[in-house]
Amino acid sequence: MEHLGQRVWAIPEGFIPDSSTGPESMASHETACILNTGDEDAHVEITLFFPDREPAGLWTVTVPARRTLHQRFGELAGDGSVPVGSDYASVLVSDVPVVVQHTRLDSRQSANALLSTVAYAAR
Amino acid sequence: MEHLGQRVWAIPEGFIPDSSTGPESMASHETACILNTGDEDAHVEITLFFPDREPAGLWTVTVPARRTLHQRFGELAGDGSVPVGSDYASVLVSDVPVVVQHTRLDSRQSANALLSTVAYAAR
Amino acid sequence: MEHLGQRVWAIPEGFIPDSSTGPESMASHETACILNTGDEDAHVEITLFFPDREPAGLWTVTVPARRTLHQRFGELAGDGSVPVGSDYASVLVSDVPVVVQHTRLDSRQSANALLSTVAYAAR
Amino acid sequence: MEHLGQRVWAIPEGFIPDSSTGPESMASHETACILNTGDEDAHVEITLFFPDREPAGLWTVTVPARRTLHQRFGELAGDGSVPVGSDYASVLVSDVPVVVQHTRLDSRQSANALLSTVAYAAR
Repeated sequence: MEHLGQRVWAIPEGFIPDSSTGPESMASHETACILNTGDEDAHVEITLFFPDREPAGLWTVTVPARRTLHQRFGELAGDGSVPVGSDYASVLVSDVPVVVQHTRLDSRQSANALLSTVAYAAR
Repeated sequence: MEHLGQRVWAIPEGFIPDSSTGPESMASHETACILNTGDEDAHVEITLFFPDREPAGLWTVTVPARRTLHQRFGELAGDGSVPVGSDYASVLVSDVPVVVQHTRLDSRQSANALLSTVAYAAR
Repeated sequence: MEHLGQRVWAIPEGFIPDSSTGPESMASHETACILNTGDEDAHVEITLFFPDREPAGLWTVTVPARRTLHQRFGELAGDGSVPVGSDYASVLVSDVPVVVQHTRLDSRQSANALLSTVAYAAR
Repeated sequence: MEHLGQRVWAIPEGFIPDSSTGPESMASHETACILNTGDEDAHVEITLFFPDREPAGLWTVTVPARRTLHQRFGELAGDGSVPVGSDYASVLVSDVPVVVQHTRLDSRQSANALLSTVAYAAR
């Protein structure tokens, strides 16, 4: 299949809940779901934006040809990584077209909540 | 009415929760809602993508003229079907324009959670 | 302000939960939120689509100039109206550009769940 | 990075829940998440629309260069501000391109619910 999608995606909403309830599998998290339908690996550079400091990054993740990667923002480690319980946003730049969807699972209270939206395709 | 929509749709997020609470009608599930507004039947080929193996498919579903089909991913049977509790993604290719929206009901915990987004119209 | 938006919108997902918990204000419902930013009233024709019968409608609602209308699908009365607990979809056709967003509140279980997405702008 | 996005965004859905449960950090709220990826500050004018009265505004918020602002609608003060428990909609007009995503946290019942969607990019 050809490479469906676009190369630059933006996700203005970002917030990793600072607590969870329930089993490990239900831990609060926030994810960029990246789909690479084509025959070349996608190298995706992630930049994080904050309310009160300069952007952080780049983190680079690889989505192999004909694969999907559901990348948790909380697993981007190192300097400038995302603190839990605070606002952020993200931009993803890929070298081949991909499709990006944003999802959060929030299990701070006694039942979980979900949100999801296809990200904004900027270019 | 004419055939509204597009022919190729992508849904990067996919995850069928591996348990449920509450009555049968509240079982956890994930759905591609397909709307065919036109006067010809739509034949829609579904391909599934995974983090760690080759894509599976094609499953073909028919959405009759002037009808909507809310197709549960968990009901796509046979080789390569979707295991519960693991990540996947999907692409839908129709022979006539349709509109696609993605929804999940997650009832793993004591109350249900919902997410939904119009899918990405790739072509 | 000018009339922002488009004239034809589609919402493939539709399902009015068949029960509710909690106070009247938390009753399960599904809504088309229509925004008319311009100086002419918008006359919006709603058609409903089903899995197993011909489309129903037209219902016409008016969104006055510079107003928003959050129309509950369950309040479209008469022949062909939406049964609770069953799948449907909808198309909205306006005589001036508007913007449409789809929301559901599901309070069948002991806590409510929400979904929302900007509808698909078809024309 | 260049200024990703567009200048005019619409959010037809708006409703600030009129009560909350749980700790302060879980208070019900509704937010416009604005991402400014570029090197110039963004001045964003917010107009609110209602079912039964003239639009209110303009409120102007600044999103500094290379920053994100998660603006809560309930914190727009003064004449014409948003009453809790009633329907509204919003339009955001920026002097440079930005990206906007809409989110609500509803904690009226014993667990929270979430919704989110990328807003409608009108121009």
